[in-house]
Amino acid sequence: MSKLVIVGTVAFDAIETPFGKTDKILGGAATFIGLAASHFDVDSVAVSIVGDDFPEEYLNLLSEKHIDTSGIEVVKGGRTFFWSGRYHNDMNTRDTLVTELNTLADFNPVVPENYKDAEVVMLGNLHPLVQSSVLDQMSKKPKMVILDTMNFWMDCALEDLLNVIKRIDVITINDEEARQLTGEYSLVVAAKKIHDMGPKYVVIKKGEHGALLFHDDQVFYAPALPLKEVFDPTGAGDTFAGGFAGYLVKTNDFSFENMKSAVIYGSTLASFCVEKFGTERMQNLTSEQVHKRLLQFKQLTQFEIEIG
Amino acid sequence: MSKLVIVGTVAFDAIETPFGKTDKILGGAATFIGLAASHFDVDSVAVSIVGDDFPEEYLNLLSEKHIDTSGIEVVKGGRTFFWSGRYHNDMNTRDTLVTELNTLADFNPVVPENYKDAEVVMLGNLHPLVQSSVLDQMSKKPKMVILDTMNFWMDCALEDLLNVIKRIDVITINDEEARQLTGEYSLVVAAKKIHDMGPKYVVIKKGEHGALLFHDDQVFYAPALPLKEVFDPTGAGDTFAGGFAGYLVKTNDFSFENMKSAVIYGSTLASFCVEKFGTERMQNLTSEQVHKRLLQFKQLTQFEIEIG
Repeated sequence: MSKLVIVGTVAFDAIETPFGKTDKILGGAATFIGLAASHFDVDSVAVSIVGDDFPEEYLNLLSEKHIDTSGIEVVKGGRTFFWSGRYHNDMNTRDTLVTELNTLADFNPVVPENYKDAEVVMLGNLHPLVQSSVLDQMSKKPKMVILDTMNFWMDCALEDLLNVIKRIDVITINDEEARQLTGEYSLVVAAKKIHDMGPKYVVIKKGEHGALLFHDDQVFYAPALPLKEVFDPTGAGDTFAGGFAGYLVKTNDFSFENMKSAVIYGSTLASFCVEKFGTERMQNLTSEQVHKRLLQFKQLTQFEIEIG
Repeated sequence: MSKLVIVGTVAFDAIETPFGKTDKILGGAATFIGLAASHFDVDSVAVSIVGDDFPEEYLNLLSEKHIDTSGIEVVKGGRTFFWSGRYHNDMNTRDTLVTELNTLADFNPVVPENYKDAEVVMLGNLHPLVQSSVLDQMSKKPKMVILDTMNFWMDCALEDLLNVIKRIDVITINDEEARQLTGEYSLVVAAKKIHDMGPKYVVIKKGEHGALLFHDDQVFYAPALPLKEVFDPTGAGDTFAGGFAGYLVKTNDFSFENMKSAVIYGSTLASFCVEKFGTERMQNLTSEQVHKRLLQFKQLTQFEIEIG
């Protein structure tokens, strides 16, 4: 079984949307990535940090999904990273209400010995120096390193970000961030500039408008499934990345054609994530439900056309 | 050969984009629709009105593209409808600088006798009473009536608009207009509400994010081809509609599956329209170029995935 290293936050989220609000619930990039990747036959480990206020049951929940938690440091007397946000009516924009770094402020990720030869590394959104230090620990070059990031690091740690971007194969980034990183409005031109920074593959996430996969002069466009209702977008991007990574690890095929399928799996899983608050929908998602929605994706996008 | 009635403006446009500006050039919804439909083997007529300031060469240009101009009234001493606009840097928003209705203010469309039994009617964006009066003139019920409209008529002539919408099969409308017409943010819910107003098929245009086709519980999503540069978006929506209509007329197949292909053809033609100012690119577009881009659309969207 191929191995996947997942680096990212394991955290508490408190979320407000037009549909309601939550208390502190389970969140964090590594959590969403791990839950999505658990739909594939992979041996994954979460590398993260929490305080001892983090409930045992949450760690158990990850273990039950076959996510190895031995890479999650539990800091005695420490408190877990906490984020709180409020979504606007359009669900595309949000205000951050609270960010408490807590234990995350001193996070030194340690990749467990038996995962240092993992085939795929998924670097969730974190300080680029933390992301780099994970790559330094790998005993052999992974077949694929995927990195997610955000505008915050472009503002505050651009040089570190550019250094880690040189070392990766795939970047996942949203459309506004791609524009900020390159100064280009056209996503085609932005993707080319990001290619030149290092990554052979560029995935640009456009939320409700889907995702684009760029590789040299090739492009693939996976729409998002049009939904009656987006209940809570939190974690959708991480779920996309987790599905993408999980599918590649499972199939062990890193061709462009197979990466198209990985994008479709990522989009499919993300379409579930937004149906309920936080991780709720992902906790109980069955493979039958996933397969049914994959068929919907086919109907949504596939056509027969006679050319000529 | 099946017949297509195209109703809409034939006009002068003056356009400013970040790339440059034009003097008065050929424009108008019926012009763009007709040029797009001319890529299919159809017998089309343009129903419109111009002044005698409208150059003979423009009418000849339409005739050379096998668009019957006998439905275009030329008003002696009248002046042709003129629109001028300036696009912002993002190319998604624009300011209207000048709108001179001129002869359009008294437009009473007359469908030529030999087109009153046309299979398909494409009602370009005009006052809904004008659109209705064209339907009144048809001697037999068309197989398909397609209507394009805009937010202006929702603001100024909503009741008339709702009346004509009852009588059509397909509406093409952009995302913001669909939201305005229904008061629903979710496009899935908005499409359902528009279904209930009459049209069996709802096409929601999302500009650079592509187009959605809704029919009952079925959805099809055609992305827009990601482009390095959008030079001038003027006429892209009409070109889309013209390609959509032309393909349906040619194939005489009004099934949902075939309408998917019609959407792809519309998107393909629209992707050319934006490459140059006004109708310039559409005037010289060859079928070989269209076929090549259709293959690009296939690569952009088609995937093989094993489910299970």
